[in-house]
Amino acid sequence: MYDLLKGLRVVEGSAFIAGPTCGLYLAQMGAQVIRFDNIAGGPDFRRWPLAQNGSSLYWEGLNKAKKSVALDLSRPEGRELAQRLAAAPGEAGGLFVTNFPAEGFLAYERLKALRDDLICVRVMGWADGGPGVDYTINAAVGVPQMTGPTDDDRPVNHVLPAWDLLTGAYAAFTLVSALLDRRTSGRGREIRIPLSDIAAATLANMGMTAEAALGGHQRARHGNDLYGAFGRDFVTRGGQRIMLVAITPRQWKGVLAVLGIAEPVAALEAELACDFVADEGQRFAHRDRLFPLFEQAFAARDLAELAPVFEADGVCWGPYQPLETAMADPRLFAGNPIFSDLTHPSGQTYPAAGAAATIPQDVRGPARPAARLGQHTDEVLAEVLGMSGAEIARLHDAGIVAG
Amino acid sequence: MYDLLKGLRVVEGSAFIAGPTCGLYLAQMGAQVIRFDNIAGGPDFRRWPLAQNGSSLYWEGLNKAKKSVALDLSRPEGRELAQRLAAAPGEAGGLFVTNFPAEGFLAYERLKALRDDLICVRVMGWADGGPGVDYTINAAVGVPQMTGPTDDDRPVNHVLPAWDLLTGAYAAFTLVSALLDRRTSGRGREIRIPLSDIAAATLANMGMTAEAALGGHQRARHGNDLYGAFGRDFVTRGGQRIMLVAITPRQWKGVLAVLGIAEPVAALEAELACDFVADEGQRFAHRDRLFPLFEQAFAARDLAELAPVFEADGVCWGPYQPLETAMADPRLFAGNPIFSDLTHPSGQTYPAAGAAATIPQDVRGPARPAARLGQHTDEVLAEVLGMSGAEIARLHDAGIVAG
Repeated sequence: MYDLLKGLRVVEGSAFIAGPTCGLYLAQMGAQVIRFDNIAGGPDFRRWPLAQNGSSLYWEGLNKAKKSVALDLSRPEGRELAQRLAAAPGEAGGLFVTNFPAEGFLAYERLKALRDDLICVRVMGWADGGPGVDYTINAAVGVPQMTGPTDDDRPVNHVLPAWDLLTGAYAAFTLVSALLDRRTSGRGREIRIPLSDIAAATLANMGMTAEAALGGHQRARHGNDLYGAFGRDFVTRGGQRIMLVAITPRQWKGVLAVLGIAEPVAALEAELACDFVADEGQRFAHRDRLFPLFEQAFAARDLAELAPVFEADGVCWGPYQPLETAMADPRLFAGNPIFSDLTHPSGQTYPAAGAAATIPQDVRGPARPAARLGQHTDEVLAEVLGMSGAEIARLHDAGIVAG
Repeated sequence: MYDLLKGLRVVEGSAFIAGPTCGLYLAQMGAQVIRFDNIAGGPDFRRWPLAQNGSSLYWEGLNKAKKSVALDLSRPEGRELAQRLAAAPGEAGGLFVTNFPAEGFLAYERLKALRDDLICVRVMGWADGGPGVDYTINAAVGVPQMTGPTDDDRPVNHVLPAWDLLTGAYAAFTLVSALLDRRTSGRGREIRIPLSDIAAATLANMGMTAEAALGGHQRARHGNDLYGAFGRDFVTRGGQRIMLVAITPRQWKGVLAVLGIAEPVAALEAELACDFVADEGQRFAHRDRLFPLFEQAFAARDLAELAPVFEADGVCWGPYQPLETAMADPRLFAGNPIFSDLTHPSGQTYPAAGAAATIPQDVRGPARPAARLGQHTDEVLAEVLGMSGAEIARLHDAGIVAG
């Protein structure tokens, strides 16, 4: 937790990954983030993975450090409360993150009528409002066909919901950017971020659509080979698989030295009349000649012998390791200062991530757990909407709110 | 191009994907982004994919809408110019994005001595400064082992550099957040964003580390099956592969209706004493019983018959299609208003993405191409550093700058 956004109040009406990630990033930088949900939980409230008692480890991970308000969104009065929260007054507020449909009770025009300078960031599937999620959009832009072993032509879905995550981070970026503008212009706006446009723009930004347009077809599948430079997985004598990457001339020369294959590689350069140091692309173009030299060198050496030399020479590599091994790795999880041990709403105690950024000049506050569903209903109705105790009691009695 | 960040000046000294993506996002929201590079180009200047003339489609995609300054960074005078640019005066400036090492000539403390309120966002590999790139970090957190067909235990690298992209978007978010704070506190800071911490925090945020900690091991590989709900690829009678996802009750009921399998699914629910509508997890737990019903239904129907009914019923699906097919899809590329036809530094004309966000209340300006390397050297030295024509000419003569 850092304080860069201290004093801001953001309301989140969202589910799954992109919107909640946006809210999480804002909360971890110090904004007060108020998430509202249906009384029984939103559509992501029981999403796997689950703790043994059925609590969602996913939900409590993505909603850390947020306040929780529970409303009956199936009834007009509950929906009106959601609208009033999204557009609540106060200079610190008027910031709303959602993945509710662009038309409907949380449409921008309805909220703008309540607060003219509202900033509404809306995560969408397809830009036209059609249903799309990370996995369906990913299939539609061709990534699964480029992924996986070259001896198998079945498309491979990613398991990391990369488009969702990128959309969430981009949503947080656009929200603070719009706030920066509002501070001088006084203007609010709706910002729509469809997963489909994030995916299309990203492939274009990396030159992949230009490549397909100029070449007539998308990039071929290359298995675990890094496209356009030198990189692949190799297996050591002891059977440890590692990912090795050499992009810069320094990395390339370093790895040849460590593996003791500078000589045969130089002979290959002479034979092929190419320069692997100066031109990373040649390392990719001739990888079928290079890889066997590396395979042999790795097969003759143990990782215990290689790792310290790799470190000393600045070789860029990583072990393939399962997450449970990574969790004991001090560079990733165990002892990593971005993590704090917390007891979560599931009742389980395990390390929780704070902000992924580190600001050496600032004090990092500990991560904060997710709230119990509806834990802050009364507090928020009183403080943000200025409701009296009697009004709040009536809403409870009528089953419009809970918590 | 939108104007949310108009008036800001950001200096970028970075390469590859994360830093340049950060700069690109800032530029597409209206900031003036000035990228400096070595005179012969940075380490990413010839990165694949390439146009036929050797120009990098990757470089010109990631550096759109930025100004370019070329300096000899191997010489002290060139390095000093880079420092002066990063820390140049002016209220609109003092914003620097880099992936140069945390120690060295672009260390924060050196730049802070030139400008006390500098905001420096530094993308890193490992948090300790060790060399790491997307693919080596990805192997180290276990994702490749969770990816790919269940009948093959080889790890599968992703081809989408998801950690780089997420880091870039998160960097843009933190830069604007720090600026919001600086506008009131007057304080600058360094913000370090290691890929390793982005990866570790992300897996934790989604509950995957909790799952591994509580269960003793990481999630098993599930092929193309969506974890914890209903989703997989299916093949139609005509051989078209589609990704189908049903998470909400509405999506689930919709797809059963379209495929005409509500009855056998109800029989299965009775047999297993479970409720697939209410509990998405049960759809995953019993997917081996459900999938054959779906496979048969798809094998008996053509996509031409299914697609309109899917659309009408709000079924969440996407075709698997190669990028060249996606590029003719009006919902993704052809006719998508986020794209503009541009002639790029490679000399090639092809559609370029603007901001992935759409702001209905604002006018979207057309995308802008990348600069020629060094195209703005003289302009930037004059306008940002206030140099005279004579000084600039001397730097050219000495080979310290080019363009």
